Order: sequence, then C-alpha cells, then structure tokens
Amino acid sequence: MTDLVPLDDRGFTLGDGLFETLLVEDGRIAFWPEHLARLTAGCATLGLPAPDPQAMQAAATAALVDQPGRLALRLNVTAGSGGRGLDRPAEPALRIAAKAFPAPVAAGALTLATSTVRRNDGSPASRLKTLAYLDNVLARAEARAAGADEAVMLNTRGEVACAAAGNLFWIDGGRLFTPALDCGVLAGVIRARVIAAAAAQGVEVVEVRAGAEVLASADAVMVSNSLIGLRPVSALDGRSLAPHALTERLAARL
Amino acid sequence: MTDLVPLDDRGFTLGDGLFETLLVEDGRIAFWPEHLARLTAGCATLGLPAPDPQAMQAAATAALVDQPGRLALRLNVTAGSGGRGLDRPAEPALRIAAKAFPAPVAAGALTLATSTVRRNDGSPASRLKTLAYLDNVLARAEARAAGADEAVMLNTRGEVACAAAGNLFWIDGGRLFTPALDCGVLAGVIRARVIAAAAAQGVEVVEVRAGAEVLASADAVMVSNSLIGLRPVSALDGRSLAPHALTERLAARL
Repeated sequence: MTDLVPLDDRGFTLGDGLFETLLVEDGRIAFWPEHLARLTAGCATLGLPAPDPQAMQAAATAALVDQPGRLALRLNVTAGSGGRGLDRPAEPALRIAAKAFPAPVAAGALTLATSTVRRNDGSPASRLKTLAYLDNVLARAEARAAGADEAVMLNTRGEVACAAAGNLFWIDGGRLFTPALDCGVLAGVIRARVIAAAAAQGVEVVEVRAGAEVLASADAVMVSNSLIGLRPVSALDGRSLAPHALTERLAARL
Repeated sequence: MTDLVPLDDRGFTLGDGLFETLLVEDGRIAFWPEHLARLTAGCATLGLPAPDPQAMQAAATAALVDQPGRLALRLNVTAGSGGRGLDRPAEPALRIAAKAFPAPVAAGALTLATSTVRRNDGSPASRLKTLAYLDNVLARAEARAAGADEAVMLNTRGEVACAAAGNLFWIDGGRLFTPALDCGVLAGVIRARVIAAAAAQGVEVVEVRAGAEVLASADAVMVSNSLIGLRPVSALDGRSLAPHALTERLAARL
C-alpha cells in the first residue's frame, strides 16, 4: 500500500484495471461484500487473476486511518507493472491501492443533459468500472458545459445506457424502467437494491433496450450510485420534471 | 519529473490523459515535432490546457539519461491531480511524465486476428492515444489467444478502424487503402508518412469507410506505428497473404 504508483503500472499507462467507489460513514464501509464480488467478477472478465480479499481489506483499512466523517473510498485494482506495450506479463501481479476522499452528503434533484459521447457497448469494459473512464469524463464535461449536473450516455446503437457516474431509472405509467445490462451498463450495487426495493413494493420493474425518446416522455427520471443513493432528476435536456412519489418511496427503502 | 504518480492523478484514476510512444535511437528522438503537435492538439480535443513544450522536452531528456540503444519513450500528459470524481478541477495542472523502455528492432511479417472488441468511434477519444486504452488491451489479448500477433479492431458500425497498436493499410488492385480518420482512427505519424510516400511514388491512396470484407479480399495488408514502421501482414484470420512489392517499396521510403 502506497499513495504512489509507478509509471509502468498498467492502470496508469493503459487504464488496465478496475475500481470501486465505496461509501464510508463513521468508519463503516457500505456494501463491502457486493463491491468485492463485483471487483472479482470484473477481473475475471478482463482476464486478470482474482484479487486477494485480505489485501483489499488491508488497503481499505490503511486508507481509512485517521479519516473521520463521510468518505468516498476509491479502491483500485490494476494489472500491475508490465513493460510498455499492450501485452500483459505472462503472470500479472495485481496492484491494489486505495485512497479515501471527503464525500459530503449530496441531496436534492439533479439536472441531466444527453451527451454526444457514446458508451461503447461493443466492449466488455462497458459493463465494468474500469480505470479507462475517459469517455465518462468527457460526457460529464459536456453536460457541465450545457449547464447540467450530469450526463445521460447513450450506447453506440443510440439506446439509453447510463449516467456518466451512475445508473439510470425512469417511471412511465407506474412502472419502473432501467437499461438492460447488455446496453453497456454497470451492474450497480444501488441499481440492484432499487430493483429489489421496487419489487418488494409491488412495482413492476422492466430492464429494457430503449431509445432516448423514452426519457423525453417519462413521468420521472432518477440516477443512482453508491455515493448519492437514488436521486431524482428535475430537468432533462431543459425539460422540467416534477417530483414523483415513487422516487421518494424507493429512496427511503435503500 | 518522477517515476511515480500519486493515487489521485486523473490519468491513473480515470484514464484522463494522453500519451505518445516515440522511437529513440542512439539518443535521437524520431519525429519529435510531430508527436508534440499531436499531443497538443489532443489536449485541446480533451478540453485540457496545452502542455508546455519545454516541460515535455525536459521530461523526455531526463527519461533518456544513461539509456543507450534502441528505446521506446513513453511520454504521458495527464489532467493532473484532482479529487475523486469525474469533474476536473477548475484549472487542471497537467502532469507530464516520461519513461524509456528497451525496444529491440522488430522485423518480419505480422499475423492478425479480427477482435470482437469494437473501437468506440462514438467518442472523440477514439482519435487519440489516451491513457484509457483498455479496449485495445482486450483486443490484443483476444488476438493473442487466437494465436495471432495483433488485432484488427472494427468500429461500432463494423467498419475497419485500426490495429490494437497501429494503423492499418491494405492494397487492392494497385491502390493503397486506409481507414478514414472519422472511423475512430488515430492520425498516426507513420500513417501520414506512408500516405506521403505512396503519393510520391504515384500510388493512389484512398482513405475510406469500409466493412471487414475489404480485408478478406485485399491483395496485401500492413500495420504501421512509430516503433515498427510499416510491417507486412502474413495472415489475417487464418488466411495467408503473400508478400507484396509495394509494401517493401513503401517501407524502404520511410
């Protein structure tokens, strides 16, 4: 564990690695098993060995020493050091590195703008939180430039995929919709909990492939991730959206 | 200049940055002005300030101290340190870091396999050498697993885009073809020189949008990048390709 990575780390040189962003409150890490399971599955998808759970725990613990309050823990797993080119070493030695950042409570509704930067559903990386997140950076910057808080990313077929940093939900006719995972979508920890909370309340949940027009006609839109939970959207591409009772009911159940 | 980057560097956390790979022989850097111009243009595309040429020169010089022989110089420019999330600091302070790696002369023909991982032409990053190169890592790994040296990447429309680490050319009926830049293609330094060399020899050069079938019927296929120059392809997806006189003539003119 260190706060530095070498210049030949493949996470740095190529984005060859994964991360998780974990909410920490009063020293307690939320959904640790879920995040670890996702990291481990993601390493398998990338063809990397499984990260050592004890090493990840140790990295997280060290990063949280003398760090009070509400935090976002950035847990990184990279393909390790490895020459210069695209080919990995025959036996990659994973690098695990964690760092905590202050994460003040975020509240209130978000405004969204649809980005021109597409989510590459033509790569397995589109279903993972990878260290190669530049498309998401560009999408967010475009949304900010348009005066919005966050971006809607469509995939390469023009289907609704996700927010730059979160999953998307919308309500239409009393039903809850979210993009199917094969649209190029991360299987978000909160996404799964929102789906479960809706089902527990008897709300029909539909995972779909759908074009951008579904958001333009939705009764309500929401964004979810580990740090913000489930947040309502008050405007999308300039169209105002009223608060919706279901959003509040679901957020309260997380 | 350092051989370490902090854990909050956005190049590491998000792939928010660019790189160049420069050939160095006997202490002499090939095509320095071309690589610097491309880095500077790329920063503008990403919405980053222009990197300081003197700082880049200093980083390169420091990385080459006591490094004899043929080298690949990895020159990285990142969006610098910046919190945890997708949003950049209001005024990003670029981080410039370089490292040299041995680069033995590579010769002979390459074998290629077409990857299922698509080049995301739906992002401006597809026309840049970014620190978010995971799709290329995955494409290369897939090609290696298929017993080939290098991958052919198609873009999200199924058009021929590039090799995982290089530009593609092919010969058909005496004409030289290469994917147009808006297919999701890097404007390679060697790509430009191959095009100029062909034109100087009276060979018609066509920059095209074309499906994968054009490679399957081509008379010859080639890959170019700064380290390998222009290399012939001896097999593509298992189909053998004979040497072609034009490939040798062009390679000799670089």
